[in-house]
Amino acid sequence: MDALQPKKIEGIFTPLLVPMDERGQINEPEFRRFINWLIKCGVHGLYPNGSSGEFTRHTPAERRRITHMVVEEAAGRVPVIAGAAEANVAETLAACEAYAEMGVRAVAIVAPFYYKLAPESVYAYFAEIARNSPVDLTLYNIPMFASPIDVPTIRRLADEFPRVIGIEDSTGDLAFMMRMMAAIRPSRPDFTFLTGWEAVLVPMLLIGCDGGTHCSSNVVPEVTRRMYDLTRSGDTTAAMRWQFRLLELFDAMLYPFEFPYGFKAAAELRGFHFGTGRLPQTAKQRGEYQALTEILECILGDIEVIGRPNGGPARLREPNEIPPAQLEQMIVKVVGELRHRGLV
Amino acid sequence: MDALQPKKIEGIFTPLLVPMDERGQINEPEFRRFINWLIKCGVHGLYPNGSSGEFTRHTPAERRRITHMVVEEAAGRVPVIAGAAEANVAETLAACEAYAEMGVRAVAIVAPFYYKLAPESVYAYFAEIARNSPVDLTLYNIPMFASPIDVPTIRRLADEFPRVIGIEDSTGDLAFMMRMMAAIRPSRPDFTFLTGWEAVLVPMLLIGCDGGTHCSSNVVPEVTRRMYDLTRSGDTTAAMRWQFRLLELFDAMLYPFEFPYGFKAAAELRGFHFGTGRLPQTAKQRGEYQALTEILECILGDIEVIGRPNGGPARLREPNEIPPAQLEQMIVKVVGELRHRGLV
Amino acid sequence: MDALQPKKIEGIFTPLLVPMDERGQINEPEFRRFINWLIKCGVHGLYPNGSSGEFTRHTPAERRRITHMVVEEAAGRVPVIAGAAEANVAETLAACEAYAEMGVRAVAIVAPFYYKLAPESVYAYFAEIARNSPVDLTLYNIPMFASPIDVPTIRRLADEFPRVIGIEDSTGDLAFMMRMMAAIRPSRPDFTFLTGWEAVLVPMLLIGCDGGTHCSSNVVPEVTRRMYDLTRSGDTTAAMRWQFRLLELFDAMLYPFEFPYGFKAAAELRGFHFGTGRLPQTAKQRGEYQALTEILECILGDIEVIGRPNGGPARLREPNEIPPAQLEQMIVKVVGELRHRGLV
Amino acid sequence: MDALQPKKIEGIFTPLLVPMDERGQINEPEFRRFINWLIKCGVHGLYPNGSSGEFTRHTPAERRRITHMVVEEAAGRVPVIAGAAEANVAETLAACEAYAEMGVRAVAIVAPFYYKLAPESVYAYFAEIARNSPVDLTLYNIPMFASPIDVPTIRRLADEFPRVIGIEDSTGDLAFMMRMMAAIRPSRPDFTFLTGWEAVLVPMLLIGCDGGTHCSSNVVPEVTRRMYDLTRSGDTTAAMRWQFRLLELFDAMLYPFEFPYGFKAAAELRGFHFGTGRLPQTAKQRGEYQALTEILECILGDIEVIGRPNGGPARLREPNEIPPAQLEQMIVKVVGELRHRGLV
Repeated sequence: MDALQPKKIEGIFTPLLVPMDERGQINEPEFRRFINWLIKCGVHGLYPNGSSGEFTRHTPAERRRITHMVVEEAAGRVPVIAGAAEANVAETLAACEAYAEMGVRAVAIVAPFYYKLAPESVYAYFAEIARNSPVDLTLYNIPMFASPIDVPTIRRLADEFPRVIGIEDSTGDLAFMMRMMAAIRPSRPDFTFLTGWEAVLVPMLLIGCDGGTHCSSNVVPEVTRRMYDLTRSGDTTAAMRWQFRLLELFDAMLYPFEFPYGFKAAAELRGFHFGTGRLPQTAKQRGEYQALTEILECILGDIEVIGRPNGGPARLREPNEIPPAQLEQMIVKVVGELRHRGLV
Repeated sequence: MDALQPKKIEGIFTPLLVPMDERGQINEPEFRRFINWLIKCGVHGLYPNGSSGEFTRHTPAERRRITHMVVEEAAGRVPVIAGAAEANVAETLAACEAYAEMGVRAVAIVAPFYYKLAPESVYAYFAEIARNSPVDLTLYNIPMFASPIDVPTIRRLADEFPRVIGIEDSTGDLAFMMRMMAAIRPSRPDFTFLTGWEAVLVPMLLIGCDGGTHCSSNVVPEVTRRMYDLTRSGDTTAAMRWQFRLLELFDAMLYPFEFPYGFKAAAELRGFHFGTGRLPQTAKQRGEYQALTEILECILGDIEVIGRPNGGPARLREPNEIPPAQLEQMIVKVVGELRHRGLV
Repeated sequence: MDALQPKKIEGIFTPLLVPMDERGQINEPEFRRFINWLIKCGVHGLYPNGSSGEFTRHTPAERRRITHMVVEEAAGRVPVIAGAAEANVAETLAACEAYAEMGVRAVAIVAPFYYKLAPESVYAYFAEIARNSPVDLTLYNIPMFASPIDVPTIRRLADEFPRVIGIEDSTGDLAFMMRMMAAIRPSRPDFTFLTGWEAVLVPMLLIGCDGGTHCSSNVVPEVTRRMYDLTRSGDTTAAMRWQFRLLELFDAMLYPFEFPYGFKAAAELRGFHFGTGRLPQTAKQRGEYQALTEILECILGDIEVIGRPNGGPARLREPNEIPPAQLEQMIVKVVGELRHRGLV
Repeated sequence: MDALQPKKIEGIFTPLLVPMDERGQINEPEFRRFINWLIKCGVHGLYPNGSSGEFTRHTPAERRRITHMVVEEAAGRVPVIAGAAEANVAETLAACEAYAEMGVRAVAIVAPFYYKLAPESVYAYFAEIARNSPVDLTLYNIPMFASPIDVPTIRRLADEFPRVIGIEDSTGDLAFMMRMMAAIRPSRPDFTFLTGWEAVLVPMLLIGCDGGTHCSSNVVPEVTRRMYDLTRSGDTTAAMRWQFRLLELFDAMLYPFEFPYGFKAAAELRGFHFGTGRLPQTAKQRGEYQALTEILECILGDIEVIGRPNGGPARLREPNEIPPAQLEQMIVKVVGELRHRGLV
């Protein structure tokens, strides 16, 4: 590799949660303390202004302030990929320039959202940014929230623009990931594939992914790092044991809460104050928050990243109780039952 | 019109529910009694072996027996459109021949199901049947259960095969219905458009539909007939008043039950025995059945097609209570709440 | 009605397209000329910062500037409902205050987008805004782009907050509209129901809607106004004749283009300069634009709102040619054929 | 393990394609020849009457005849799991009895299809069968075609009925597979998990699946067997190399054809006559068939399971040509382009 060539992006990049204070403003000291803890826990990089960072709920000025703090606090210890999508191409390019000047390794651009665009328009959008960006860029594919980026579009962008150096993919679809790798690696071996769906982190690494950007790495950074290291070292059995534990935690943080508030609740248990966030809650929702947090406490105690609650055994659930890992499926079932009840 | 030309299909065609006895067999005497009642209540035609008739849960021999009884009992008083789809084209054509011989006005062929076919294959399937059928045929489009039939395919079939004389469409999508009528009527003014989504029966008639095939006409045949007559006579206001009532009943029969068991429960209240059907139920489901039936009783009492339950006022619900018309939406809401409860 | 009570919102409210200049900035003089033309053509009100207005592609400052111009130009001749959704509740309330001061009749708030929220959170979001807004607000339900607002949530908001005075619904689902009206009108007869799906404008008015907010009214404001007047006067037949014409135009503007660029292309043919917009295009897309515009020209000539192209007959298409009204269905068909070609 | 306890089901079970003759009847001699070849190629078991076997396009009598031939030809060399779903529970149980008598290892019951059932009804259906079946049964979960079977339902059935011994899951969703294994293995270590989505066969085996039932094993049985053996022996790298090749073949067989006709076309290239099947084709489709088959020939030649076509190099595609692996994505893209063309 050329000595001047920047290193290929690899490993666990944390899409940073953002702590808020009582007035609904970004809690800067807590954010800086959190960033330092993550780096000490072994994450390979930081990713401000992702979906985990609730980038759409911040103002343009706040998004820049967040990136500024992250780069400053990282201080060259780990690379930073900054989410740079703004209202339109001109605003996005201005953000790219600002972040390039701050010293980020790359920017991440989510596909256009709200309007669902056709592939040709998705291509045109990224091509326009790639043509003018002063910094390397990665594509952020999250079809559950934004326009999908399909394999031919990714290939076209990878072939035409050396500035496009990777993709963060949140589909969790292994066959799709393999199709991307088969289409792009022959001509662009330097291209980075990161998965954003930690429910399948170990399988994704086993099929050839370079790493992941997972909200869970805000909560258990040492665990996702260990999963990465175990997989890389060939210990699939041990890596999968952790994968099953992470899946239980992930399901418990993701499905009963609005994203990313379950992850914030769990990260609170690691000793950080995330505040109430910018999504209004009803009194009822606030009441339920406590019960849900207790479940998270048990799982984290079970994984042994926090002390066991109440000095007792970590696992409060009885062996016969239904584990949180089946939350989503249960909800589907409950709906069916409600349909049969009729009074609802 | 040519005197030999059969009359265009128009009006309310009831997709017949099938009464079962205690041994799970078709209750023939009750079925015949039911058919006679429907004709007396004013439906314009009968439609055995539709989705309402649970055609997939019967054997090929039972489907023929059902059609035979319907034609025999109708005895020329009203036309019969018989569902004739079987496992493959050869079996389907054999059924078409049998039904032609029985004297049905037309057959109805649902688009291929289980496998979801592309439009070219849907065309090939219907073309092969139309080419060989000894009887007029109608296309049955129900994309929620079977391969969709798109506008160009319908147009192609209508243009090439005079034997294809109409469509039953269960999408409830008015714009789609208008697109079909705009594409086909210029060249085939005789082509019949029937809606299978009674939630919007009156609007469908207002935009130009020729009638409908609705499961609700098993339950309140006089009401759907009245809605048809009022709309045809130009009394939109009165027709819409009934449409709102029918929508409440429809929602209460459709969403809390597996289809078509809510319609069967309501038809029982009109004095017919439909038995338990061929779908196994849990003890819990059987318990809920009673509560749901009470709701149906109130709505039917309110419409005044049955006596008011318990000699009291028809409507048991308090004015402030949430009406069954919002069942589906409430379920969506309950799911959201369950997600926040977490213990489920 | 109380003399001090503001008039119920009714009629056609145009969700304004925004003309851009060569530098990609808002073309203010053209925007003002366009607004005046719309008012002269008979629209009942104006609606800046809707989906047609590409609100997500503008900066917060631009959205305020747009509303300011609209209110100024309307000058009390027609009421204004201004889209006021910003990045979070605090920013949204600041916009509500600014727009209240400008003199809008109401604001419109789209449900939260990007993240898909559960009904309880959608309620919490609107409740927080309704509790603090200095101006009447309407709910904007567009589930294809944003979190859905379900019937119980709408009812809950209508019951608790007199400030919530109506809904713009873009589903085009008539049964859903009837369920909303059945749930809310008994307790809130003043509540306004506007449809945003002009493909079914006349049927929606026939079932009881108060009006519509349609992108098409930027292109043929006199036609949508005529459809409204004909329906209100009871001439369903004439209204439906226009509905079929509008559907053909709508399909030709909506499906082959990214929204709302087909509408902008058609509005150009009415004599206004809309520029290229903020969505980058490939060279190929620019080439196709011309062919598509010719189709729009024919349809508009056929409706006789513009002169017939080339001095010849308005309609270039041959009678046997497939009309643009089936564009969507044809695409579905083409996909099926492509699957069978294999080389694509 | 009890000596009398039958062996746990493991390995590659081929869901058998069924050869047809010129008259559209089952080609019995060819079917028997095909079965013997598969066994010699190393598949661990046979699975008649699955989706690959087009069970819905056969009559009940044909389904029995098929199973009879398979059991007879297998002659105890490999176990047989027979698809036994019929029109209703009574007919299904009669098939179970017939297949038990023939000597199948187990039956496979697909979840109810056409009507989409709620989980409680799916449970009731399988419970009724499990209660009365004289033979072990496996659940067949294929939500793209039939009612979904969720994790709590599978767990409930596994806990209550020892007769329910496994699941064939065609979702290809690794997280779902892990949730099932986490929920069921603690209490039922004997329960078998087979994946039906060979696009991710190796990753599924790596996370703990017991094997697979894949249509591709009709075409390249030695390859899927090799993938199984390599994964079991710990050679993930070699197994994944084959996985990427299989994915290319799978995409080329699945997406451009109606299922399972691409698999039949490829199996023809292995030397068996599958006939035209029971799905009518247009002349156009027949023409495209040849071009598609040439692509399959190249891929199979490349894998070296057949001779290279025309004596030349196996791979006809130029290096820069788009590989069939991206077929699905390309179709999505083409739709977008067609939308921009407008003339379609």
